[in-house]
Amino acid sequence: MGVFTKELEFHSRGKGTYEISDDVAEVIRESKLRTGTVTVFVAHTSASLVLMENADPSARHDLEKFFDKLVPEDTAYFTHTYEGADDMPSHIRMALTRSSEVIPFREACMLLGTWQGIFLFEHRRADHRRKVVVTVMGE
Amino acid sequence: MGVFTKELEFHSRGKGTYEISDDVAEVIRESKLRTGTVTVFVAHTSASLVLMENADPSARHDLEKFFDKLVPEDTAYFTHTYEGADDMPSHIRMALTRSSEVIPFREACMLLGTWQGIFLFEHRRADHRRKVVVTVMGE
Amino acid sequence: MGVFTKELEFHSRGKGTYEISDDVAEVIRESKLRTGTVTVFVAHTSASLVLMENADPSARHDLEKFFDKLVPEDTAYFTHTYEGADDMPSHIRMALTRSSEVIPFREACMLLGTWQGIFLFEHRRADHRRKVVVTVMGE
Repeated sequence: MGVFTKELEFHSRGKGTYEISDDVAEVIRESKLRTGTVTVFVAHTSASLVLMENADPSARHDLEKFFDKLVPEDTAYFTHTYEGADDMPSHIRMALTRSSEVIPFREACMLLGTWQGIFLFEHRRADHRRKVVVTVMGE
Repeated sequence: MGVFTKELEFHSRGKGTYEISDDVAEVIRESKLRTGTVTVFVAHTSASLVLMENADPSARHDLEKFFDKLVPEDTAYFTHTYEGADDMPSHIRMALTRSSEVIPFREACMLLGTWQGIFLFEHRRADHRRKVVVTVMGE
Repeated sequence: MGVFTKELEFHSRGKGTYEISDDVAEVIRESKLRTGTVTVFVAHTSASLVLMENADPSARHDLEKFFDKLVPEDTAYFTHTYEGADDMPSHIRMALTRSSEVIPFREACMLLGTWQGIFLFEHRRADHRRKVVVTVMGE
């Protein structure tokens, strides 16, 4: 049994979903571990993670639109708006999705479903550098 | 320390919550491990997991109704509808709940609360075979 | 590699978010492990966990208000209301957030973002004692 940790950085260019599956897969290969779980963790409160269909981009488009409508930027009662209208909605959208995803792997390959991809979900309008920590644990 | 992985298959018969706590408990016993965490992972983007009250079915009934109303099937702006009106809502309901649950165990028993059960949350209307990967890690 | 588990108890005094980051950090120090992941698990279905901004309390205030509006206590179709108007909303708010959070650590310190705190999210009005299980795994 062993553990291998690597910090990745992604450059997001506005609100949306960015697939990072290949980057996570590469860390598993680097770890030389064969069986276990990989934990993907986003070290921010205005970006999150989601496993989503990665075949047809329309699914992600509809998902993003749903969150835009569920947590509108012009919500009258928001008080935490110092960084702009997308400040508070970004925290709520993060809380409604996930900060970590734990995915099993075997023979050094993640046991994801056929169309299941790992996405960084950026909730801010401006460009950001986002830190994602990948921890591989197993044998 | 060791790791033990098993793939389970569940046959869902339409939208709803299906308890899988006993199946997960059985994998822990098979693993012969005594202390650690079990990761339950659903390898699909139109089904998810949720820990929920397992005593009174009315709680799950209300939960399912809430998600039906929060993400309605007849949402006008959905474009990802190739597989039917329940296609896109299923992805969003998955994103709003969980793809993995990580639960601690000790003396080979999960440390779940008294009325806490593990449920597969099926979001599609048609019958499906769902793959759930259970990874036991510990000593 | 090793695993260390500790059960913590928190006394919540009504609906709201309660930071528990320092309590989790203390368990990592007790474990003597240096690198790996810590799993925080709440053993209840009417309380949950969320990673949230811990600098400006207005962000948590807005978050709590959003959940109050998204899952209103007076929802007409709720049938699971035996324990009061906050019974069913508490289960749904739990399902929309998280029952476990998995956070990487290195040199015995969690790799949380600068303003990222771990919060117990209490959804019931009355005082409660809440059990949180912290599992440290690594080397």
